[in-house]
Formats: sequence, C-alpha cells, structure tokens
Amino acid sequence: MSEPDLVTLHPGPDDYVHTFGTRPPLTTVRPGTIVELTTEDCFGGAVRGFGDLPSQVCVFPYLNPVTGPIAVAGAEPGDTLAVHFVEITPARDWGVSSTFPHFGALTATHTTAMLHPPLEERVWLYEIDVATGVCRFRARTGDFTVDLPLDPMHGTVGVAPAAGETLMSITPGAHGGNLDTPEMRAGTTAYFRVNVEGALLAIGDGHARQGEGEVCGTAVETAMRTVVVVDLIKGGGPAWPRLESDGHLISTGSARPLEDAFRISQHDLVGWTRDLLGLDELDAYQLVSQAGLAPAANVCDTNYTMVAKLPKRLLGPVRAYDGMHEHLRAVGAAYLHRR
Amino acid sequence: MSEPDLVTLHPGPDDYVHTFGTRPPLTTVRPGTIVELTTEDCFGGAVRGFGDLPSQVCVFPYLNPVTGPIAVAGAEPGDTLAVHFVEITPARDWGVSSTFPHFGALTATHTTAMLHPPLEERVWLYEIDVATGVCRFRARTGDFTVDLPLDPMHGTVGVAPAAGETLMSITPGAHGGNLDTPEMRAGTTAYFRVNVEGALLAIGDGHARQGEGEVCGTAVETAMRTVVVVDLIKGGGPAWPRLESDGHLISTGSARPLEDAFRISQHDLVGWTRDLLGLDELDAYQLVSQAGLAPAANVCDTNYTMVAKLPKRLLGPVRAYDGMHEHLRAVGAAYLHRR
Amino acid sequence: MSEPDLVTLHPGPDDYVHTFGTRPPLTTVRPGTIVELTTEDCFGGAVRGFGDLPSQVCVFPYLNPVTGPIAVAGAEPGDTLAVHFVEITPARDWGVSSTFPHFGALTATHTTAMLHPPLEERVWLYEIDVATGVCRFRARTGDFTVDLPLDPMHGTVGVAPAAGETLMSITPGAHGGNLDTPEMRAGTTAYFRVNVEGALLAIGDGHARQGEGEVCGTAVETAMRTVVVVDLIKGGGPAWPRLESDGHLISTGSARPLEDAFRISQHDLVGWTRDLLGLDELDAYQLVSQAGLAPAANVCDTNYTMVAKLPKRLLGPVRAYDGMHEHLRAVGAAYLHRR
Amino acid sequence: MSEPDLVTLHPGPDDYVHTFGTRPPLTTVRPGTIVELTTEDCFGGAVRGFGDLPSQVCVFPYLNPVTGPIAVAGAEPGDTLAVHFVEITPARDWGVSSTFPHFGALTATHTTAMLHPPLEERVWLYEIDVATGVCRFRARTGDFTVDLPLDPMHGTVGVAPAAGETLMSITPGAHGGNLDTPEMRAGTTAYFRVNVEGALLAIGDGHARQGEGEVCGTAVETAMRTVVVVDLIKGGGPAWPRLESDGHLISTGSARPLEDAFRISQHDLVGWTRDLLGLDELDAYQLVSQAGLAPAANVCDTNYTMVAKLPKRLLGPVRAYDGMHEHLRAVGAAYLHRR
Repeated sequence: MSEPDLVTLHPGPDDYVHTFGTRPPLTTVRPGTIVELTTEDCFGGAVRGFGDLPSQVCVFPYLNPVTGPIAVAGAEPGDTLAVHFVEITPARDWGVSSTFPHFGALTATHTTAMLHPPLEERVWLYEIDVATGVCRFRARTGDFTVDLPLDPMHGTVGVAPAAGETLMSITPGAHGGNLDTPEMRAGTTAYFRVNVEGALLAIGDGHARQGEGEVCGTAVETAMRTVVVVDLIKGGGPAWPRLESDGHLISTGSARPLEDAFRISQHDLVGWTRDLLGLDELDAYQLVSQAGLAPAANVCDTNYTMVAKLPKRLLGPVRAYDGMHEHLRAVGAAYLHRR
Repeated sequence: MSEPDLVTLHPGPDDYVHTFGTRPPLTTVRPGTIVELTTEDCFGGAVRGFGDLPSQVCVFPYLNPVTGPIAVAGAEPGDTLAVHFVEITPARDWGVSSTFPHFGALTATHTTAMLHPPLEERVWLYEIDVATGVCRFRARTGDFTVDLPLDPMHGTVGVAPAAGETLMSITPGAHGGNLDTPEMRAGTTAYFRVNVEGALLAIGDGHARQGEGEVCGTAVETAMRTVVVVDLIKGGGPAWPRLESDGHLISTGSARPLEDAFRISQHDLVGWTRDLLGLDELDAYQLVSQAGLAPAANVCDTNYTMVAKLPKRLLGPVRAYDGMHEHLRAVGAAYLHRR
Repeated sequence: MSEPDLVTLHPGPDDYVHTFGTRPPLTTVRPGTIVELTTEDCFGGAVRGFGDLPSQVCVFPYLNPVTGPIAVAGAEPGDTLAVHFVEITPARDWGVSSTFPHFGALTATHTTAMLHPPLEERVWLYEIDVATGVCRFRARTGDFTVDLPLDPMHGTVGVAPAAGETLMSITPGAHGGNLDTPEMRAGTTAYFRVNVEGALLAIGDGHARQGEGEVCGTAVETAMRTVVVVDLIKGGGPAWPRLESDGHLISTGSARPLEDAFRISQHDLVGWTRDLLGLDELDAYQLVSQAGLAPAANVCDTNYTMVAKLPKRLLGPVRAYDGMHEHLRAVGAAYLHRR
Repeated sequence: MSEPDLVTLHPGPDDYVHTFGTRPPLTTVRPGTIVELTTEDCFGGAVRGFGDLPSQVCVFPYLNPVTGPIAVAGAEPGDTLAVHFVEITPARDWGVSSTFPHFGALTATHTTAMLHPPLEERVWLYEIDVATGVCRFRARTGDFTVDLPLDPMHGTVGVAPAAGETLMSITPGAHGGNLDTPEMRAGTTAYFRVNVEGALLAIGDGHARQGEGEVCGTAVETAMRTVVVVDLIKGGGPAWPRLESDGHLISTGSARPLEDAFRISQHDLVGWTRDLLGLDELDAYQLVSQAGLAPAANVCDTNYTMVAKLPKRLLGPVRAYDGMHEHLRAVGAAYLHRR
C-alpha cells in the first residue's frame, strides 16, 4: 500500500474547542491519513498544584478542551468514521486529579440536586513515568503511596452531533464525546456515525489511567501526544459509537438513568452480533447474555456511559466493518516501524 | 404607564427553527414589548388525517418548529427574561395527536432500548371549538367520544442555552425548551435565565390540552395565535425555568431519571421560598414538604420534566421578582381591553 | 340494607406491627364491616418535642407502626379487597414532622449513597385544630408562621404481600403499604389484590396533611381516629392498588426509578379505562394521555410512588367495580348519620 | 488445625425454599464447618427441552429454589458470616437458558411497564462438559455453535434479611440473595451481615456461566454440587455483601436505578479501603476512582446489582477481616487434598 498522508495538529492555547458541533475545522484530511496531535488536559492545564482548585482556576464552560475539529474529506451523513488509536503517550511527567464541587458519583450534583454543601474540593498530583509504565498515587493525608499501572486513554473522542446540535465537550452521547471509557486506549478503533459533511472529529481529555465509572469525576488527567489513523467507510454509520480492539467488539451507550446506558450498549451489541453472524435476533440476545462483559465507563458526566463487550474469538472468521480494524492496526504498525 | 410596543411575528414555512441556540433573531424587541405571534404544531402542520403517519410525513430532525428567536434588547447573560402569556388561542378548529414509533412513556424508545417492535403508529383527530371551550376526543375503534375542556398551552418555550450549546427544540432543560407542562397557559409568567446577548426567546408546540406526563408522547397538537409580553429583569437569572401564575409559584426541573427532575424542581422551589420569605433553608424545605404540589409535566421527551408548585397565599404580602407577574398581568389586561 | 357489623380496634402499645405479611390477625371481620380504629404516628408517638430527635428516640426497625392486621372472612388470593375511608380525624391537637439522617428526597440516603454527612436532624411541631380545619406551621428559625389546611390521610394502607414475602411497613408496593399519597383521604375507596387468605389489612401513618412527594421524608405526622368500611369483591384483584374518589379513578405505581412508578400507574390506568369503556388499548392510551393527572405521591420511601388520575365524568354512566365506591359511600354516610 | 466438621445437605424436592427469611433451618452447623451441598437450577429442574416454556412449567412464585437455610451456631445480629466457595461443579451435563415473558433487560417488564406484548419465550439448551471446561451454545435458528468457557458460580447466596422481612429468593439486596454476579465462583469468600440468630444462610441458582448484566434474564442454569466453608466473625457485619478473591476486594450494591447500585458498591468500597489502609476518606475515594473496576452483575432482577472491585496488591500487606479469606482458602485446599 502507498504511504498514508501524515498531518500534525498542535493547537495553541486559543485553538481549543469546548463543544462538538459548530467550530469550522482546524484541518481537512483525506481518509487514511495519520494524524499526530497533542491534547491538553481537562483543566486546560490550569491545575498544577494542590492550591489550584479547579473551580477557581477554570472558568465554566471552558473545561475539557478538545483538539480539532478535523474534517474528513468525503464524509457524509450516514457514513462511518473509523478512528484508530496508534499511540497515546503522556506529554508530561505528572498528572492531576481532583474532586470538584457538586460533580462526581458520590456527591449531590446540580442534577441530582440536594441540600448538601459540596464535598471538599481537593487536588491530587500523580508522578507519571512513561519508561516504567507507572503513575504514582500519593494520599494527601498520611504517607500512603502506591504505583498504579499507566494505561493512557482519551476520555473525549467524537464527531459533530446530529440534528444541528452543538454539545458541550463534557457530554457523552450518540456522537461520542466524553465517553470516559478506559477502552479508548492505543490499539483500539472507534467507529462513529457521520452526522455532518466532514464528520468533524475532535479528541481530548487524556487520562494516564482511569478506574471504571470515574467515580470521583476526574481521572489522572494529563496532556497527551497521540497518533491516530482516520479512515472512512461509506454508509453503515452505527447509531451509537462502537469500539473494536484486537480482542473485543465493544458497543457504547450514554444516557441516564444508568440502566438506559446499559440497555443501549447491550441492544447495540446484540444487533451487531446478529448482523455479523447472521443470527436470529433472540439467538444473538442469548449469546451476548452468556458471553458478554458490561463494565461502567463513567457514572459522573451529564450522561452516564456503559460499554458492552464481546470476545471476538466467539465470532469465528467474521471481521467487523470488512476488516477495518485489522487494516488500521497494520497502518499504525507500519507507521511506528517507520518512525 | 405609556403604551407598550406591539410586534407581530407570523413566520412563513421557511422561517421556523428546530433548535434553541444558533439562529439569528427574527426580530429584536425592547423590554416590555407585546408580541402577537403564530406557531405551527409539532408536526409542522403535516399531519392532517388518519393516513398522515408522522414518521412518514415528517422528516427528522424537522420536528417541533418554534417561532423565533426573538432577541430582547439589553438582555445579558445572568439576567432574567420574563415572558407573560396573555392569550393562547387555537388557530384551527382541529388538533391532532398520535403515537410515534419508539416514542412515549409506555413504549421502548431509542434510549430505553429494547427488542420490541414499535407500537402501532396511529393518528387521532380532535375537533376544537374555541367558543364552547371544548376539544372532542373520538376513539379510532368503536364510537366512544367525549368532550374534553380546552386548556391551551405551549409545550415549548425557551431561550438560547448556556455554554455555547445548541439543542433540539424537543429537548427540555435549564434553558426551558420542550418543558411540556400544562402550567404554561395564558395568565402565566415564565422566567428564564439569559445565557446569551438578547436571550433569543422562541415559542412553539401549542397544545389544545395535555394530560400530565404526556404519556403517549404527544398532546392535542395545534397551531396557535398567541400573545405574550416580554420583559427583562437585570440579574437574578434562575438556574432553572420558573413559572408564576396568580395562584402559584412553580419551579421546573428537566432531567433523567425522573427523580432527578423532581429533585431539581423541589430544590429550586425550596431555595425560592427560602429567599422570598427570608427563611432558614430547612424551614423552607419543611414548608414545601407539607404544602407543595408535584405534578409530572412530561415523561416522554429527551429529558423528563417535573414541576413543583407552592400556593402563593402562603407567602403573605411577599411578591416574586418585585411584582413582575402582577405588572405583566396588568399590561396584558390593558392590551386585551384595548383590542 | 341491614345494618353492618361494627368493630372497634384500639391497639395498645404492644399491639402495633411494623411489617406487612406475617403477624396473625388482631381481628377477623365479615365483608361489609365498619371498623373504628386508632393509629399511632410514624414515630410511635415518641417524638413530642424539639429535643426528641427521631434517630435517637426511635429504634429501627420499629418505625411506622400499623394497626392490624384485620382478616376479612372469605378473602382468597386473587380477590379484591375494598377499603372505604369514612372518616380520618387527628386524635391529637398537635402533629410533628422532621428531617431524618439520610432519609428524604433532597439528601443522600443509604441507597443513593454519597460521601456527605447527613443534613441536620430537626423537628417541627404543628398545632392542629380540627374544628377550624387548620394545622399551623411555625418556622424553627425566625417567626414565620402560616396556617395550612388540614387534609387528614393515611400514608400506610395495605395487605399481606404475594409470594410469601413480609415487607417493612415503610415500603410501598403492589400490596399497598406506605404509598404516602394525599389521595388516601376520607371519601376514598382503596382496592387491593388479596394475596393470602383473609387479606390481612393494616392501616397506619396518619398525616394531618402532606405535600405531594413528601420531599423531606415525613408529613405532619399524628395519631388518628379513623373509620373504614371493609368489603370484598370475589376475583378481579388489581395488579397494583387502585383508589376511587367521587371524582376520580386513581391508579398507583411504586418502584424506582420514579419513571417506573409513573409507568406502572399510567399502564394500570390505561388498562382500567380500556376495560371500563370497552375501548381499544391505544384509544385508552390516547384518552389518558390527554385527560389524565399525574402527581407524585412520595419520592422518599424505599420505593417511590406516583399516582395516575382520570376524572370519572369522562366515563359516562360506567361504574367501577360494579358501583362498590358508591355503595360504600352510602354505607359510610348512613353510619355518620346514625352516630 | 483440627479437621473441620463436614456436613452434607442434599435437599429433596420438598425441601427447597423460595424466600430468604422465615423457614426454620434445615441444619445447624458450627463456625468453620465444611458443607457439601446440592442445588437445583432456577427453574426447579422443570425446563429440560425446547418445549418446556418456563412460564408454563414453573408456577410463580416457586422459582429460584435455594438450599438451606443453614443456621450457624453463635451467629448474632451484627456479626459477619463468611462463606468460602471451595468448589462449584455442574451436576448435569446440560444447562438451560431462556427468555421469559416481561423479564430481562431488553424487554418491557411488570415494573418498566409498557404496552408491548412480551418477546417470544424461547429455551436454549447447552451441553456442559466439566472435563474440558466447556459449555456449548447452539443457536435455535441456523447452525451457529460456539464453545464458551465453563465458569460455574452461584447466582443466589444470602442470609435472612433485617427488620423482620422475608424476601423472594429472586431479589438481591443488603442480605445478599439473587446478586447474580459472576464473581461468586469457587475461590471466593462472601461476607454477609448477620441479621437474625443463626444467620440462616441459603444458596442456589447455579450458573455454568453468566455474562455481566445477565441481559436476557437467565444464565446457563444448571444444578450444582457445591462445597463451602462457613465461618463466623463476631461483629463487624458489613452494610452490604462483600466478596473477596485472591486478587480482589469486591463490594456489591443492589438497588434501582442502576446508578444507585453503582453508588452503593463504590461507597462501600471507598469505606472498606479507607478502613483497611487507614486513609482519609477522600484519599480512598481518589484511589478507588483511579484503580477500581465496576462491572454489572445483573440488570434484570427486582433490584439491579453492580460490583466494585479493587486489586488487593494495591493494599500492601493489609489483610481483610484479619485474613479470613486466606484462612478459608487453606481450609478448602486441605479438604480438596484429603478428598
């Protein structure tokens, strides 16, 4: 195959976007292009020490900046945008997490409205060591410390929403956005339905690692150096974002209450399995029921996200999206080999 | 007082909007202006007979057209927009309701995703008689018929959302939008927080009447001739839309699950009561707990809406928003007297 | 008609029950019997002053005592127990309300588990004047006071659950129990499906009045002197408790999340309307959608409760349960006239 | 250590129980006893072929039979019952799964009440081969077949509930019951708060394997031969069931909506981590947020269940419950070695 286009995207402070849907593209690429890009953390880099309380140093709604949008030439509504993550590398040797007033799963919020004052707003700093693959947690009180495995991922990946909507970048939905699932790591291909000409992909919210559910509302937030391959499949756009790794098919659902996020993801996985295997729908329902995994992605954002996973080895020789994941995996490997 | 400005707004077929948030204003008015406007029904007038199935004659997302936006001179983020409904009159002698595939409270939806095929899509036509105040229900099967009281209202009233978002007009939220509460009838004043310069008010989705909860997903939908007074209070914008009638203070909350819509509306009403009466917060919580009403508005839209109502006579001589409702009531009465 | 049996039931301190389902009956009555009974308040009468914090003076699970159970001769699983409230009169000249740690709609609870410490536990005392029909709220801080209309009701009315279950009396469900709806006032007939021989009716948790939703978790709690007529319809037991007043048919649903309580109540009302009017199901769905009311009952108990109401005048000459409500109304009126 | 007591429990058809909470114990054992027991499948063994539709061959509420209850001598309210699963082996060479009318995650239910007719009721049969560790799925339509790994577990494990309640065995809750989590496999220790004298442990609902969420409502149901060690810790009873494996601490939460099940499980895991490590609560919240796993257990039962998992290696030398899991692991290993 011919060598793919290579585009680099290093936004300056004023180039970041905080919504999906309106901003004109930063760049337009051809399908198959490799994009090297950088992303800022969800605080816009403003939280750098224990004294930098997010509610004081960040100005709503200028949270969760994303890099993009990237227009993909030829992408039309109903198409499928494939985004393969070749590499996600922390761009700093530190990351940050925090509680935030009335945000998170174990606190009253503006939506789960209660009479409690907010929990204490507190910042944690993590040392990140890419060479050893570690991010180090230190308790703020006492001297407990533990090394957690680095597992870099992007919380926010998505396209322009349907129906002419523009959504805050902190909202996950049918357009992707702030899915906050640890599955969005290097080696994964994400599929999005294209809703507008050019698709308008944007990426941000790098996490050095994240627990399932993102309980306190933030992960180990850090800036990232990320490489993706962006490709296009004409037609076939899935109703909700899908992910594919070497091992799993993964459907996502973002909604409230959490059981609706679960239902959406499982419903999509049943349909995907049905179509790939040519099964009757209830047979697919049965197979997913016995063989599927269902971890929480986030239970803190404006919608909650669940993922539904099925081991690919159960499918036999079938390949999703005509082998797009395997193809992009190879493109990524060639790029890394060349570099 | 001097006679207020009078503006008329009769949009043509291409003037309707299907979102809150982006479109440039159709007109700009001064605070205190009376606006005579017309609205189309939620189907854009396309459903006129039993054979006009909405899913066939309406093209998503071109549903729920709203009239506007109307910019209000001087309105700035954080201000309070007051919209008083002087008159809401059906513009046709018929209304229409329907089921819609995977939409409504007693059906699987795209969010409450299930394996059921959709319920039958069916259209009902109502005869509307403004003179006698009746809209007549006729069963589609059998000959049961009954006259229901006409109680005209607007399902959709709102302003441009915060945070640079643009939302479909069928979504209710902090910006108002498709609240679908029967409380939005003539004689009511609605208060919205202004999020963008000019506020960008839009109104649509007239209902000849609506049950609480809008269970099947649609009300008795009809075009309306509506008169509002639009006014501005500097500052004080409420976090969620509030309504005021001669009898009640009414807070709204729009979210999922439904208990969060309930929590938001009750939380706001507790705060409103606390502030108006100078009460301790727990005292206000107690008063609302024993004296409040809590009917469902809609349990079918992309967010669900609950309202929380407190009889104003419990407040004594206190007047909300410095008597804005009483003032606009008088302005409306003078207009009707003049006409 | 012959004069009905009259039974009085005045439990002593050790006679109260805190569950639905196991205890042998206090008494067995024939269908049609009038029962004069007394009930304690939900705190077992232990909260009598500002210093009597419920979490200190009440011992879990000995909350919400109910009077009963009353066995009804001949009642078999699948039958319908009809309970008509002739009179509900506060037995004290004071009532009490309170916040309670981690209980209520606007606080973290043991189920909606969060890291917040509980809200302040505080007691409010109300003066009750049966003669003038007033219960007087006094703020704990400041001197605000207001007279609220007395509207006595029972929060807890139910029968033994199905499937051999025994449930705490604070749980609402298909067996009734702690529905906490203001609709359970004098003049109302409640219908329950019989699940065990004798039905095992119990009644408690009198409220001098209650707001819709019972937001803070407690109403104006007081002891009651109550008169009911208990009757039996063979067969026809409704899946969920139904209420009937002179004006309305009322279905209930108790579940979480709140939209499921809403769905249950609306689903039942659609079915009830369909059956009474001989309508096609979608026609009944449509009628309820446009003519129904949907207030919250409670959004604080272990299940939440919504009610769905339809004005009876819309039904024409049809009478529910073969006119049982009208019959019991007459029995109650004759009793009051005799007394 | 001295050899532990060994008790065998092979209930006959009339010995099974369908509730947690009332039945007198089948046997009473001393703490430390090894119990060899057998369990029937959730259909009571009545579904053996494609024509055995559960709704026809099973009589509600006689579903989900459990073996027990087993009283543990000396167990008092507030204590901690430890149940270690030494071995769980399918007792048949086949298992069965099915859809069931109005039961499951992707269907309307009696609680998520809708107007849809039920999905088709269908039975699937699995071949189970204990020697090769396989259970074989065969589609009912077409010839697709795939071998799934055998991963035997118990869906239902619990004790008598608190507050004098008796609950159907299909309900998961604070007493355990029908948690339906794949984590309840051999090698796991479960901890339950004791609510009544003797604790009254019961076990049932064996699954040859189960997907996370148990989407269709049933797993690969089969009879089991199971060995547990039952032990007692005085005091310290956890508010919600906890599990411990060699690798993980696991908290459970059972509630609706699903986010409340998530909240309960995460809240408990934060508290458990806080206590074991002597951390400040917010530090524990932070650690769990970045290092925790959050898979669904079931999203189909009368309550939904989520689990929250933390890798034990993060804790350092600390041992939960004073090393009870390690102790019971050794007891189980000695038993297997002896046998």
